[in-house]
Amino acid sequence: MTRAQLFEQIRKKSSYLCIGLDTDLEKIPKHLLKADDPVFEFNKQIIDATHEYCVAYKPNIAFYEALGPAGWLSLQKTLEYIPKGLFTIADAKRGDIGNTSSLYAKAFFEKLSFDSITVAPYMGEDSIKPFLYKDKWVILLAHTSNPGSSDFQLLESVVTGRKLYEEVMLKSMQWASPEQLMFVVGATQAEKMESIRALAPDHFFLVPGIGVQGGDLQMLSRHGMNKQCGLLVNSARSILYASNTTDFAKDAAREARKVKDEMEQLLSAVL
Amino acid sequence: MTRAQLFEQIRKKSSYLCIGLDTDLEKIPKHLLKADDPVFEFNKQIIDATHEYCVAYKPNIAFYEALGPAGWLSLQKTLEYIPKGLFTIADAKRGDIGNTSSLYAKAFFEKLSFDSITVAPYMGEDSIKPFLYKDKWVILLAHTSNPGSSDFQLLESVVTGRKLYEEVMLKSMQWASPEQLMFVVGATQAEKMESIRALAPDHFFLVPGIGVQGGDLQMLSRHGMNKQCGLLVNSARSILYASNTTDFAKDAAREARKVKDEMEQLLSAVL
Repeated sequence: MTRAQLFEQIRKKSSYLCIGLDTDLEKIPKHLLKADDPVFEFNKQIIDATHEYCVAYKPNIAFYEALGPAGWLSLQKTLEYIPKGLFTIADAKRGDIGNTSSLYAKAFFEKLSFDSITVAPYMGEDSIKPFLYKDKWVILLAHTSNPGSSDFQLLESVVTGRKLYEEVMLKSMQWASPEQLMFVVGATQAEKMESIRALAPDHFFLVPGIGVQGGDLQMLSRHGMNKQCGLLVNSARSILYASNTTDFAKDAAREARKVKDEMEQLLSAVL
Repeated sequence: MTRAQLFEQIRKKSSYLCIGLDTDLEKIPKHLLKADDPVFEFNKQIIDATHEYCVAYKPNIAFYEALGPAGWLSLQKTLEYIPKGLFTIADAKRGDIGNTSSLYAKAFFEKLSFDSITVAPYMGEDSIKPFLYKDKWVILLAHTSNPGSSDFQLLESVVTGRKLYEEVMLKSMQWASPEQLMFVVGATQAEKMESIRALAPDHFFLVPGIGVQGGDLQMLSRHGMNKQCGLLVNSARSILYASNTTDFAKDAAREARKVKDEMEQLLSAVL
Protein backbone atom coordinates (compact mmCIF):
# COMPACT_ATOMS: atom_id res chain seq x y z
CA MET A 1 0.00 0.00 0.00
CA THR A 2 1.33 3.47 -0.86
CA ARG A 3 1.28 6.47 1.45
CA ALA A 4 -1.35 8.12 -0.75
CA GLN A 5 -3.57 5.05 -0.49
CA LEU A 6 -3.17 4.93 3.27
CA PHE A 7 -4.05 8.61 3.59
CA GLU A 8 -7.06 8.08 1.35
CA GLN A 9 -8.32 5.35 3.70
CA ILE A 10 -7.83 7.62 6.70
CA ARG A 11 -9.87 10.38 5.05
CA LYS A 12 -12.58 8.06 3.88
CA LYS A 13 -13.06 6.44 7.26
CA SER A 14 -12.20 9.48 9.38
CA SER A 15 -10.06 7.19 11.47
CA TYR A 16 -6.41 6.48 12.11
CA LEU A 17 -7.09 3.64 14.47
CA CYS A 18 -4.97 0.51 14.28
CA ILE A 19 -6.33 -2.52 16.13
CA GLY A 20 -3.72 -4.79 17.68
CA LEU A 21 -4.72 -8.42 17.16
CA ASP A 22 -2.91 -9.62 20.28
CA THR A 23 -5.10 -12.64 20.58
CA ASP A 24 -4.57 -14.57 23.79
CA LEU A 25 -6.29 -17.92 24.39
CA GLU A 26 -6.45 -17.11 28.09
CA LYS A 27 -8.39 -13.91 27.49
CA ILE A 28 -10.83 -14.70 24.71
CA PRO A 29 -14.41 -15.71 25.61
CA LYS A 30 -14.55 -19.29 26.85
CA HIS A 31 -17.29 -20.32 24.39
CA LEU A 32 -14.82 -19.86 21.50
CA LEU A 33 -12.40 -22.45 22.84
CA LYS A 34 -14.43 -25.26 21.32
CA ALA A 35 -14.00 -23.89 17.79
CA ASP A 36 -11.53 -25.68 15.47
CA ASP A 37 -9.28 -22.65 15.48
CA PRO A 38 -10.31 -20.41 18.40
CA VAL A 39 -7.69 -17.75 17.59
CA PHE A 40 -8.94 -17.34 14.04
CA GLU A 41 -12.59 -17.51 15.13
CA PHE A 42 -12.00 -14.69 17.61
CA ASN A 43 -10.06 -12.58 15.08
CA LYS A 44 -12.72 -13.14 12.42
CA GLN A 45 -15.51 -11.87 14.65
CA ILE A 46 -13.37 -8.93 15.83
CA ILE A 47 -12.55 -7.99 12.23
CA ASP A 48 -16.18 -8.29 11.13
CA ALA A 49 -17.26 -6.04 13.98
CA THR A 50 -14.54 -3.39 13.83
CA HIS A 51 -13.23 -3.00 10.28
CA GLU A 52 -15.43 0.02 9.56
CA TYR A 53 -13.81 1.93 12.40
CA CYS A 54 -10.13 1.29 11.81
CA VAL A 55 -7.61 1.58 8.97
CA ALA A 56 -5.09 -1.01 10.11
CA TYR A 57 -4.71 -4.32 11.92
CA LYS A 58 -1.54 -5.26 13.73
CA PRO A 59 -1.12 -8.84 14.92
CA ASN A 60 1.75 -9.09 17.37
CA ILE A 61 3.58 -12.14 16.07
CA ALA A 62 4.60 -13.37 19.53
CA PHE A 63 0.99 -14.31 20.28
CA TYR A 64 0.94 -16.61 17.25
CA GLU A 65 4.50 -17.93 17.54
CA ALA A 66 3.77 -19.01 21.12
CA LEU A 67 1.23 -21.49 19.72
CA GLY A 68 3.69 -23.29 17.45
CA PRO A 69 2.91 -24.21 13.83
CA ALA A 70 -0.85 -23.98 14.50
CA GLY A 71 -0.37 -20.34 15.46
CA TRP A 72 1.16 -19.60 12.07
CA LEU A 73 -1.84 -21.10 10.36
CA SER A 74 -4.18 -18.94 12.47
CA LEU A 75 -2.09 -15.91 11.53
CA GLN A 76 -2.21 -16.75 7.83
CA LYS A 77 -6.00 -17.24 7.89
CA THR A 78 -6.43 -13.99 9.83
CA LEU A 79 -4.33 -12.05 7.35
CA GLU A 80 -6.31 -13.45 4.42
CA TYR A 81 -9.56 -12.52 6.15
CA ILE A 82 -8.69 -8.83 6.63
CA PRO A 83 -10.65 -6.86 4.00
CA LYS A 84 -8.74 -5.27 1.10
CA GLY A 85 -7.80 -1.65 1.70
CA LEU A 86 -6.88 -2.12 5.34
CA PHE A 87 -3.21 -1.69 6.17
CA THR A 88 -1.61 -4.74 7.80
CA ILE A 89 1.31 -4.64 10.20
CA ALA A 90 3.37 -7.65 11.29
CA ASP A 91 4.45 -6.54 14.73
CA ALA A 92 7.50 -8.77 14.72
CA LYS A 93 10.38 -6.49 15.80
CA ARG A 94 12.82 -8.49 13.68
CA GLY A 95 16.32 -7.47 12.61
CA ASP A 96 19.41 -9.53 11.76
CA ILE A 97 22.43 -9.43 9.45
CA GLY A 98 21.61 -8.61 5.84
CA ASN A 99 21.00 -12.03 4.31
CA THR A 100 19.00 -13.12 7.35
CA SER A 101 16.83 -10.00 7.38
CA SER A 102 16.08 -10.84 3.74
CA LEU A 103 14.63 -14.13 4.89
CA TYR A 104 12.44 -12.43 7.47
CA ALA A 105 11.28 -10.03 4.76
CA LYS A 106 10.43 -13.03 2.61
CA ALA A 107 8.51 -14.63 5.49
CA PHE A 108 6.33 -11.58 6.17
CA PHE A 109 6.05 -9.99 2.72
CA GLU A 110 6.02 -13.03 0.42
CA LYS A 111 4.94 -16.12 2.39
CA LEU A 112 2.48 -13.94 4.29
CA SER A 113 1.54 -10.77 2.48
CA PHE A 114 1.74 -8.12 5.18
CA ASP A 115 1.99 -4.47 4.11
CA SER A 116 4.55 -3.68 6.77
CA ILE A 117 6.74 -5.04 9.54
CA THR A 118 8.14 -3.57 12.74
CA VAL A 119 11.95 -3.75 12.83
CA ALA A 120 14.49 -3.27 15.66
CA PRO A 121 17.36 -0.94 14.72
CA TYR A 122 20.23 -2.21 16.90
CA MET A 123 22.14 -3.96 14.10
CA GLY A 124 22.04 -0.97 11.73
CA GLU A 125 21.70 -0.37 8.03
CA ASP A 126 22.20 -3.83 6.54
CA SER A 127 19.69 -5.29 9.01
CA ILE A 128 17.00 -2.81 7.94
CA LYS A 129 17.43 -2.32 4.19
CA PRO A 130 16.36 -5.84 3.14
CA PHE A 131 12.85 -4.96 4.37
CA LEU A 132 12.56 -2.14 1.81
CA TYR A 133 10.25 -3.75 -0.73
CA LYS A 134 8.21 -1.85 -3.28
CA ASP A 135 4.90 -0.71 -1.72
CA LYS A 136 5.83 -2.33 1.61
CA TRP A 137 6.85 -0.55 4.79
CA VAL A 138 9.50 -0.76 7.47
CA ILE A 139 8.20 0.48 10.83
CA LEU A 140 11.37 1.08 12.79
CA LEU A 141 11.47 1.16 16.59
CA ALA A 142 12.48 4.68 17.56
CA HIS A 143 11.12 5.66 20.96
CA THR A 144 9.03 2.94 22.55
CA SER A 145 6.71 3.45 25.52
CA ASN A 146 7.60 0.49 27.73
CA PRO A 147 9.39 0.97 31.07
CA GLY A 148 12.74 -0.23 29.63
CA SER A 149 12.65 2.31 26.80
CA SER A 150 14.82 4.70 28.81
CA ASP A 151 17.57 2.14 29.39
CA PHE A 152 19.26 2.66 26.03
CA GLN A 153 17.04 4.78 23.76
CA LEU A 154 17.79 7.96 25.72
CA LEU A 155 21.57 7.54 25.71
CA GLU A 156 22.96 10.85 24.47
CA SER A 157 25.75 10.94 21.90
CA VAL A 158 28.92 12.78 22.86
CA VAL A 159 29.43 13.70 19.20
CA THR A 160 26.01 15.00 18.13
CA GLY A 161 24.30 15.67 21.46
CA ARG A 162 21.38 13.66 20.15
CA LYS A 163 19.74 10.73 21.86
CA LEU A 164 19.97 7.22 20.46
CA TYR A 165 16.35 7.23 19.22
CA GLU A 166 16.99 10.53 17.44
CA GLU A 167 20.10 9.06 15.81
CA VAL A 168 18.05 6.04 14.75
CA MET A 169 15.47 8.30 13.12
CA LEU A 170 17.93 10.63 11.38
CA LYS A 171 20.18 7.85 10.05
CA SER A 172 17.35 5.66 8.83
CA MET A 173 15.76 8.63 7.05
CA GLN A 174 18.83 8.54 4.80
CA TRP A 175 18.07 4.94 3.92
CA ALA A 176 14.38 5.20 3.10
CA SER A 177 11.83 7.85 2.23
CA PRO A 178 8.54 8.60 4.04
CA GLU A 179 6.96 6.36 1.40
CA GLN A 180 8.55 3.27 2.90
CA LEU A 181 9.56 4.12 6.44
CA MET A 182 7.48 4.76 9.54
CA PHE A 183 8.58 4.98 13.16
CA VAL A 184 7.28 3.48 16.37
CA VAL A 185 6.84 6.48 18.64
CA GLY A 186 5.44 5.89 22.11
CA ALA A 187 5.55 9.46 23.36
CA THR A 188 3.44 10.11 26.42
CA GLN A 189 4.36 13.79 26.79
CA ALA A 190 3.33 16.67 24.55
CA GLU A 191 6.79 18.22 24.24
CA LYS A 192 8.40 14.95 23.35
CA MET A 193 5.83 14.21 20.65
CA GLU A 194 6.35 17.72 19.31
CA SER A 195 10.12 17.38 19.13
CA ILE A 196 9.90 13.97 17.49
CA ARG A 197 7.48 15.34 14.90
CA ALA A 198 9.89 18.20 14.21
CA LEU A 199 12.62 15.64 13.54
CA ALA A 200 10.52 13.74 10.99
CA PRO A 201 7.80 16.04 9.69
CA ASP A 202 6.59 13.77 6.90
CA HIS A 203 6.82 10.25 8.28
CA PHE A 204 3.97 8.21 9.62
CA PHE A 205 4.29 7.26 13.29
CA LEU A 206 2.83 4.09 14.73
CA VAL A 207 1.84 5.01 18.26
CA PRO A 208 1.29 2.16 20.66
CA GLY A 209 -0.77 2.12 23.71
CA ILE A 210 -3.84 4.23 23.99
CA GLY A 211 -5.97 2.47 26.54
CA VAL A 212 -4.29 -0.08 28.71
CA GLN A 213 -0.73 1.12 28.12
CA GLY A 214 -1.63 4.72 29.05
CA GLY A 215 -1.31 7.82 26.87
CA ASP A 216 -3.66 10.44 25.66
CA LEU A 217 -5.20 10.45 22.22
CA GLN A 218 -5.85 14.18 22.18
CA MET A 219 -2.36 15.13 23.27
CA LEU A 220 -0.57 12.89 20.83
CA SER A 221 -2.86 13.82 17.97
CA ARG A 222 -2.52 17.56 18.51
CA HIS A 223 1.24 17.39 18.75
CA GLY A 224 1.94 14.48 16.44
CA MET A 225 -0.34 14.94 13.43
CA ASN A 226 0.88 16.29 10.12
CA LYS A 227 -1.05 17.32 7.00
CA GLN A 228 -1.42 13.73 5.87
CA CYS A 229 -2.46 12.70 9.36
CA GLY A 230 0.89 10.95 9.86
CA LEU A 231 -0.38 8.83 12.73
CA LEU A 232 -1.59 5.30 13.22
CA VAL A 233 -2.67 4.89 16.81
CA ASN A 234 -2.85 1.38 18.11
CA SER A 235 -5.29 -0.03 20.62
CA ALA A 236 -5.51 -3.70 21.45
CA ARG A 237 -6.74 -4.94 24.81
CA SER A 238 -9.37 -2.27 25.48
CA ILE A 239 -11.08 -3.20 22.21
CA LEU A 240 -10.36 -6.94 21.97
CA TYR A 241 -11.29 -7.69 25.53
CA ALA A 242 -14.04 -5.10 26.04
CA SER A 243 -16.06 -8.03 27.35
CA ASN A 244 -15.78 -11.78 27.30
CA THR A 245 -19.40 -12.72 26.84
CA THR A 246 -21.03 -14.01 23.64
CA ASP A 247 -21.50 -10.30 22.84
CA PHE A 248 -17.74 -9.63 22.84
CA ALA A 249 -17.67 -8.55 19.18
CA LYS A 250 -20.49 -6.08 19.67
CA ASP A 251 -18.70 -4.68 22.70
CA ALA A 252 -15.42 -4.47 20.76
CA ALA A 253 -17.23 -2.57 17.98
CA ARG A 254 -18.62 -0.10 20.51
CA GLU A 255 -15.14 0.57 21.92
CA ALA A 256 -13.58 0.90 18.45
CA ARG A 257 -16.34 3.26 17.40
CA LYS A 258 -15.78 5.40 20.47
CA VAL A 259 -12.10 5.85 19.53
CA LYS A 260 -13.00 6.46 15.88
CA ASP A 261 -15.52 9.17 16.83
CA GLU A 262 -12.86 10.98 18.83
CA MET A 263 -10.42 10.61 15.92
CA GLU A 264 -12.98 12.06 13.51
CA GLN A 265 -13.13 15.24 15.58
CA LEU A 266 -9.37 15.48 15.92
CA LEU A 267 -8.89 14.92 12.19
CA SER A 268 -11.39 17.59 11.25
CA ALA A 269 -9.17 20.19 12.94
CA VAL A 270 -6.34 19.35 10.53
CA LEU A 271 -7.75 18.09 7.23
CA MET B 1 21.78 -26.38 30.90
CA THR B 2 23.94 -24.80 33.64
CA ARG B 3 27.26 -23.06 33.06
CA ALA B 4 29.07 -25.91 34.83
CA GLN B 5 27.44 -28.44 32.50
CA LEU B 6 28.36 -26.40 29.44
CA PHE B 7 31.96 -26.10 30.59
CA GLU B 8 32.05 -29.84 31.28
CA GLN B 9 30.97 -30.51 27.68
CA ILE B 10 33.65 -28.17 26.38
CA ARG B 11 36.32 -29.99 28.38
CA LYS B 12 35.11 -33.43 27.44
CA LYS B 13 34.99 -32.66 23.73
CA SER B 14 37.91 -30.22 23.63
CA SER B 15 35.72 -27.99 21.52
CA TYR B 16 33.81 -24.74 21.81
CA LEU B 17 32.41 -24.94 18.32
CA CYS B 18 28.79 -23.97 17.71
CA ILE B 19 27.36 -25.03 14.36
CA GLY B 20 24.84 -22.65 12.84
CA LEU B 21 21.98 -24.61 11.29
CA ASP B 22 21.20 -21.93 8.71
CA THR B 23 19.61 -24.40 6.38
CA ASP B 24 18.77 -22.96 3.00
CA LEU B 25 16.81 -24.97 0.42
CA GLU B 26 18.73 -23.22 -2.32
CA LYS B 27 22.08 -24.37 -0.97
CA ILE B 28 21.52 -27.93 0.21
CA PRO B 29 22.42 -30.81 -2.12
CA LYS B 30 19.81 -31.27 -4.83
CA HIS B 31 19.27 -34.96 -4.13
CA LEU B 32 17.73 -34.06 -0.74
CA LEU B 33 14.95 -32.02 -2.29
CA LYS B 34 12.90 -35.11 -2.96
CA ALA B 35 12.78 -36.04 0.75
CA ASP B 36 9.51 -35.42 2.64
CA ASP B 37 11.18 -32.75 4.73
CA PRO B 38 14.44 -31.74 3.00
CA VAL B 39 15.38 -29.24 5.72
CA PHE B 40 15.11 -31.83 8.47
CA GLU B 41 16.81 -34.49 6.34
CA PHE B 42 19.77 -32.17 5.76
CA ASN B 43 19.97 -31.16 9.43
CA LYS B 44 19.75 -34.78 10.57
CA GLN B 45 22.68 -35.83 8.42
CA ILE B 46 24.69 -32.76 9.46
CA ILE B 47 24.02 -33.46 13.14
CA ASP B 48 24.91 -37.15 12.78
CA ALA B 49 28.18 -36.23 11.10
CA THR B 50 29.27 -33.31 13.29
CA HIS B 51 27.93 -33.72 16.85
CA GLU B 52 31.19 -35.19 18.13
CA TYR B 53 33.07 -32.04 17.16
CA CYS B 54 30.81 -29.33 18.51
CA VAL B 55 29.13 -28.40 21.78
CA ALA B 56 26.23 -26.34 20.44
CA TYR B 57 23.82 -26.02 17.53
CA LYS B 58 22.28 -22.70 16.58
CA PRO B 59 19.43 -22.67 14.09
CA ASN B 60 18.81 -19.15 12.84
CA ILE B 61 15.03 -18.93 13.10
CA ALA B 62 14.66 -16.78 9.97
CA PHE B 63 15.59 -19.75 7.78
CA TYR B 64 12.67 -21.73 9.21
CA GLU B 65 10.18 -18.88 9.49
CA ALA B 66 10.69 -18.12 5.79
CA LEU B 67 9.17 -21.54 5.01
CA GLY B 68 5.90 -20.91 6.84
CA PRO B 69 4.29 -23.44 9.18
CA ALA B 70 6.25 -26.30 7.55
CA GLY B 71 9.46 -24.57 8.60
CA TRP B 72 8.39 -24.62 12.23
CA LEU B 73 7.81 -28.35 12.01
CA SER B 74 11.28 -28.85 10.51
CA LEU B 75 12.71 -26.76 13.35
CA GLN B 76 10.88 -28.76 15.99
CA LYS B 77 12.04 -32.09 14.54
CA THR B 78 15.61 -30.79 14.29
CA LEU B 79 15.61 -29.65 17.90
CA GLU B 80 14.30 -33.01 19.07
CA TYR B 81 16.98 -34.77 17.03
CA ILE B 82 19.92 -32.93 18.60
CA PRO B 83 21.59 -35.33 21.07
CA LYS B 84 21.24 -34.64 24.80
CA GLY B 85 24.13 -32.69 26.27
CA LEU B 86 24.51 -30.34 23.32
CA PHE B 87 23.63 -26.72 23.98
CA THR B 88 20.88 -25.35 21.73
CA ILE B 89 20.53 -21.72 20.69
CA ALA B 90 17.45 -20.20 19.07
CA ASP B 91 19.04 -17.42 17.04
CA ALA B 92 15.87 -15.36 17.00
CA LYS B 93 16.97 -11.86 18.05
CA ARG B 94 13.59 -11.25 19.67
CA GLY B 95 12.68 -8.48 22.12
CA ASP B 96 9.38 -6.74 22.86
CA ILE B 97 7.50 -5.19 25.77
CA GLY B 98 7.40 -7.35 28.89
CA ASN B 99 4.24 -9.39 28.39
CA THR B 100 5.09 -9.97 24.74
CA SER B 101 8.66 -11.04 25.46
CA SER B 102 7.10 -13.56 27.88
CA LEU B 103 5.25 -15.07 24.93
CA TYR B 104 8.43 -15.35 22.88
CA ALA B 105 10.10 -17.00 25.88
CA LYS B 106 7.20 -19.43 26.02
CA ALA B 107 7.54 -20.14 22.28
CA PHE B 108 11.25 -20.96 22.43
CA PHE B 109 11.63 -22.39 25.94
CA GLU B 110 8.33 -24.21 26.44
CA LYS B 111 6.75 -24.99 23.05
CA LEU B 112 10.22 -25.69 21.70
CA SER B 113 12.76 -26.55 24.38
CA PHE B 114 15.79 -24.50 23.41
CA ASP B 115 18.47 -23.90 26.06
CA SER B 116 18.92 -20.29 25.01
CA ILE B 117 17.73 -17.49 22.77
CA THR B 118 19.42 -14.46 21.23
CA VAL B 119 17.73 -11.21 22.27
CA ALA B 120 17.98 -7.63 20.92
CA PRO B 121 18.50 -5.04 23.69
CA TYR B 122 16.92 -1.89 22.20
CA MET B 123 13.74 -1.96 24.33
CA GLY B 124 15.59 -2.42 27.62
CA GLU B 125 15.09 -4.26 30.88
CA ASP B 126 11.45 -5.35 30.68
CA SER B 127 12.02 -6.70 27.18
CA ILE B 128 14.92 -8.91 28.35
CA LYS B 129 13.97 -10.13 31.83
CA PRO B 130 11.07 -12.37 30.75
CA PHE B 131 13.65 -14.60 29.03
CA LEU B 132 15.37 -15.33 32.35
CA TYR B 133 14.13 -18.86 32.99
CA LYS B 134 15.80 -21.32 35.36
CA ASP B 135 18.62 -23.16 33.53
CA LYS B 136 17.92 -21.23 30.32
CA TRP B 137 20.01 -18.47 28.82
CA VAL B 138 19.61 -15.03 27.32
CA ILE B 139 22.26 -14.31 24.69
CA LEU B 140 22.09 -10.55 24.34
CA LEU B 141 23.30 -8.72 21.24
CA ALA B 142 26.20 -6.54 22.37
CA HIS B 143 28.68 -5.90 19.56
CA THR B 144 27.71 -7.62 16.33
CA SER B 145 30.04 -8.11 13.38
CA ASN B 146 27.85 -7.04 10.47
CA PRO B 147 28.58 -3.86 8.48
CA GLY B 148 25.72 -1.96 10.18
CA SER B 149 27.02 -2.73 13.66
CA SER B 150 28.81 0.62 13.76
CA ASP B 151 25.67 2.63 12.98
CA PHE B 152 24.34 2.64 16.55
CA GLN B 153 26.37 0.23 18.70
CA LEU B 154 29.38 2.55 18.77
CA LEU B 155 27.47 5.67 19.78
CA GLU B 156 29.33 7.08 22.77
CA SER B 157 27.45 8.32 25.82
CA VAL B 158 28.00 11.91 26.87
CA VAL B 159 27.44 10.88 30.49
CA THR B 160 29.62 7.80 30.90
CA GLY B 161 31.95 8.01 27.91
CA ARG B 162 31.02 4.43 27.15
CA LYS B 163 29.73 3.10 23.85
CA LEU B 164 26.20 1.81 23.48
CA TYR B 165 27.31 -1.84 23.38
CA GLU B 166 29.29 -1.31 26.58
CA GLU B 167 26.25 0.24 28.23
CA VAL B 168 24.18 -2.73 27.09
CA MET B 169 26.65 -5.13 28.66
CA LEU B 170 27.08 -3.26 31.95
CA LYS B 171 23.37 -2.63 32.48
CA SER B 172 22.27 -6.13 31.60
CA MET B 173 24.90 -7.59 33.95
CA GLN B 174 22.86 -6.01 36.75
CA TRP B 175 19.80 -7.93 35.58
CA ALA B 176 21.29 -11.41 35.21
CA SER B 177 24.34 -13.34 36.36
CA PRO B 178 26.90 -15.13 34.16
CA GLU B 179 24.82 -18.25 34.84
CA GLN B 180 21.99 -16.95 32.66
CA LEU B 181 23.41 -14.25 30.43
CA MET B 182 25.80 -14.46 27.48
CA PHE B 183 26.67 -11.80 24.94
CA VAL B 184 26.96 -11.81 21.18
CA VAL B 185 30.41 -10.42 20.52
CA GLY B 186 31.59 -10.17 16.94
CA ALA B 187 35.00 -8.64 17.56
CA THR B 188 37.37 -8.89 14.66
CA GLN B 189 40.27 -7.04 16.32
CA ALA B 190 42.43 -8.23 19.20
CA GLU B 191 42.23 -5.04 21.25
CA LYS B 192 38.50 -4.87 20.99
CA MET B 193 38.07 -8.48 22.09
CA GLU B 194 40.42 -7.80 24.98
CA SER B 195 38.53 -4.75 26.15
CA ILE B 196 35.19 -6.52 25.89
CA ARG B 197 36.55 -9.44 27.91
CA ALA B 198 37.77 -7.00 30.55
CA LEU B 199 34.24 -5.59 30.79
CA ALA B 200 32.66 -9.01 31.37
CA PRO B 201 35.35 -11.36 32.66
CA ASP B 202 33.03 -14.23 33.57
CA HIS B 203 30.37 -14.27 30.87
CA PHE B 204 30.22 -16.58 27.92
CA PHE B 205 30.42 -14.86 24.54
CA LEU B 206 28.78 -16.22 21.43
CA VAL B 207 31.10 -15.23 18.60
CA PRO B 208 29.65 -15.30 15.11
CA GLY B 209 31.43 -15.68 11.93
CA ILE B 210 34.59 -17.66 11.70
CA GLY B 211 34.77 -18.74 8.11
CA VAL B 212 32.56 -16.93 5.66
CA GLN B 213 31.94 -13.88 7.81
CA GLY B 214 35.66 -13.31 8.42
CA GLY B 215 37.50 -13.30 11.75
CA ASP B 216 40.32 -15.23 13.22
CA LEU B 217 39.88 -18.13 15.62
CA GLN B 218 43.34 -17.80 17.12
CA MET B 219 43.05 -14.08 17.76
CA LEU B 220 39.63 -14.20 19.33
CA SER B 221 40.48 -17.25 21.42
CA ARG B 222 43.70 -15.79 22.79
CA HIS B 223 42.07 -12.51 23.69
CA GLY B 224 38.57 -13.68 24.49
CA MET B 225 38.93 -16.90 26.48
CA ASN B 226 38.55 -17.04 30.24
CA LYS B 227 39.24 -19.87 32.70
CA GLN B 228 35.99 -21.58 31.87
CA CYS B 229 36.61 -21.09 28.17
CA GLY B 230 33.89 -18.44 28.01
CA LEU B 231 33.52 -18.73 24.25
CA LEU B 232 31.16 -20.40 21.85
CA VAL B 233 32.40 -19.79 18.34
CA ASN B 234 29.88 -20.20 15.58
CA SER B 235 30.48 -21.49 12.11
CA ALA B 236 27.69 -22.18 9.65
CA ARG B 237 28.21 -22.00 5.91
CA SER B 238 31.79 -23.28 5.74
CA ILE B 239 30.66 -26.49 7.51
CA LEU B 240 27.09 -26.89 6.22
CA TYR B 241 27.97 -26.22 2.61
CA ALA B 242 31.47 -27.71 2.50
CA SER B 243 30.22 -29.56 -0.56
CA ASN B 244 26.88 -30.27 -2.16
CA THR B 245 27.42 -33.81 -3.33
CA THR B 246 25.98 -36.96 -1.76
CA ASP B 247 29.09 -36.83 0.46
CA PHE B 248 28.12 -33.47 1.94
CA ALA B 249 27.83 -34.80 5.49
CA LYS B 250 31.27 -36.39 5.36
CA ASP B 251 32.70 -33.13 4.03
CA ALA B 252 30.92 -31.17 6.76
CA ALA B 253 32.39 -33.52 9.38
CA ARG B 254 35.88 -32.95 7.98
CA GLU B 255 35.46 -29.17 8.20
CA ALA B 256 34.01 -29.34 11.72
CA ARG B 257 36.83 -31.59 12.83
CA LYS B 258 39.39 -29.19 11.43
CA VAL B 259 37.97 -26.38 13.57
CA LYS B 260 37.70 -28.67 16.59
CA ASP B 261 41.37 -29.72 16.27
CA GLU B 262 42.44 -26.10 16.27
CA MET B 263 40.21 -25.43 19.27
CA GLU B 264 41.72 -28.36 21.14
CA GLN B 265 45.17 -26.78 20.84
CA LEU B 266 43.93 -23.35 21.85
CA LEU B 267 42.06 -24.77 24.84
CA SER B 268 45.08 -26.70 26.06
CA ALA B 269 46.92 -23.41 26.54
CA VAL B 270 44.27 -22.27 29.04
CA LEU B 271 42.75 -25.30 30.77
